[in-house]
Amino acid sequence: MTCIKKIKSNIDMWLENYFENKGTYNKKIYEAMNYSLNIGGKRIRPLLMILTYSMYKDNYKEIIPVAGAVEMIHTYSLIHDDLPCMDNDDLRRGKPTNHKVFGEAIALLAGDGLLSEAMNVIINYCSYKDIEAIEACKVIFNAAGTEGMVGGQTVDILSENKEISKEELQYMHKKKTGAIIKSSIIAGAILGKAPKKDINDLSLYGEKLGLAFQIRDDILDVIGTTEELGKQAKKDEIDEKTNYITVYGLEKCQYLCEKLTDECIDILNKIPKDTSKLKEITNTLLYRKK
Amino acid sequence: MTCIKKIKSNIDMWLENYFENKGTYNKKIYEAMNYSLNIGGKRIRPLLMILTYSMYKDNYKEIIPVAGAVEMIHTYSLIHDDLPCMDNDDLRRGKPTNHKVFGEAIALLAGDGLLSEAMNVIINYCSYKDIEAIEACKVIFNAAGTEGMVGGQTVDILSENKEISKEELQYMHKKKTGAIIKSSIIAGAILGKAPKKDINDLSLYGEKLGLAFQIRDDILDVIGTTEELGKQAKKDEIDEKTNYITVYGLEKCQYLCEKLTDECIDILNKIPKDTSKLKEITNTLLYRKK
Repeated sequence: MTCIKKIKSNIDMWLENYFENKGTYNKKIYEAMNYSLNIGGKRIRPLLMILTYSMYKDNYKEIIPVAGAVEMIHTYSLIHDDLPCMDNDDLRRGKPTNHKVFGEAIALLAGDGLLSEAMNVIINYCSYKDIEAIEACKVIFNAAGTEGMVGGQTVDILSENKEISKEELQYMHKKKTGAIIKSSIIAGAILGKAPKKDINDLSLYGEKLGLAFQIRDDILDVIGTTEELGKQAKKDEIDEKTNYITVYGLEKCQYLCEKLTDECIDILNKIPKDTSKLKEITNTLLYRKK
Repeated sequence: MTCIKKIKSNIDMWLENYFENKGTYNKKIYEAMNYSLNIGGKRIRPLLMILTYSMYKDNYKEIIPVAGAVEMIHTYSLIHDDLPCMDNDDLRRGKPTNHKVFGEAIALLAGDGLLSEAMNVIINYCSYKDIEAIEACKVIFNAAGTEGMVGGQTVDILSENKEISKEELQYMHKKKTGAIIKSSIIAGAILGKAPKKDINDLSLYGEKLGLAFQIRDDILDVIGTTEELGKQAKKDEIDEKTNYITVYGLEKCQYLCEKLTDECIDILNKIPKDTSKLKEITNTLLYRKK
């Protein structure tokens, strides 16, 4: 299996070339989309998709467009989340947020454009592939929508300045961040034509990883500095939002995160395939600093 | 062929039922999406798709989901266009705009949710249909994105408070409004398995109709009242935007609109099918009051 660094560099290359030389009178929108898409993202979702796929197939370059489309969806959600009417953030990945550079209107349209382009990429991909392609894309788009990311974001917005139950908090986290992470893994498995049993196991793995990822995010929000994170630290406290820290405290969160990661590794151990790369990225995510 | 009123009522019913009983903690987002989706739209795009399809097939109910998805795309674009950072409109279809009722953050997410849901509808539709479904959906999503609606909207935003050339104005209008109208017609023809020659003719018809539609919009913006239009009149003048009226004057615009409509009818006359319903809606659009 190819190393993670090499895969990431291929994803980066695909995304960097994607909007090159596009546009006429509308050139500005490609500039704005490109800015956020290629500002140094970790490419976690595409990597998870490709690493899962690579447990079953050798030719991972085949699915780079689908992986790239998921990164476009993730990027659109960041641009919209950062807007003044949402989280009102000035900094993302250590750089000014999209609307700080291009203005709110263009940033809004850049988000819309990235989501639309993700759909274009995927529908083009589906048009020359078999039924697995459509099934995988269904999973992704379901996770992006109102029963996934947009739904979680809605609950997040509604929860500002009020206390929410543990159930609602878990719902919010699972949907807001977890859904796309989980769907990237499931899509990778479906595209790799993994057996049904493995898809179920990987689905559970994805769910736990997504939750651990978001709890780690909450932890970093508290223990990290703005400089380290490349985005505003202590943001939830400022916005008076309920998160895992406010409900369970820092220590319990660290324990929960480690426990979930252990459970992830246990699931991967059960799958009769080379899961070493997925284990590597799982551990990296748990101990990440930003 | 079934009458236009009956088709519209079936589209309305599908859209009204679509979000019923959906959601748990995220219920608010469905409320917001539903509000704008079912506030009295004319359903022009789905009607054009179905009327075109019905020239070739009898079972138009088959494609209502695709037609409904296009209306979702159209509605998302209206919600985002109305936001304060875009056109900042308080009134749409005689009712308060989405953000006036639900706040900016939820309105933004409702737009994102509608675009995502359109994708869900379409990818589900494609999963049990033949290759024409994917081809038709490609046309729609291409028209919705940065080479279509989002691109036109970008040029529109960038043109505020400055003069633009006739070429740029035409580009903007073709993309902003025309692209989705044209794609609805082409998608209807592809789904109906129309012969290649007809698809080409209908494509030209769609292009001219889209342009006539937008010029009529510019005319109405000037001659209509806020009450008649159900939205702010004289909006382009207020925002100091270049439009067909500022470039060609009212009289020339009325002439252009009639000329384009005549050309539309001429094209329809050449197609060896019953084009009477498309002619009916073409004339209605030219003389519409809102």
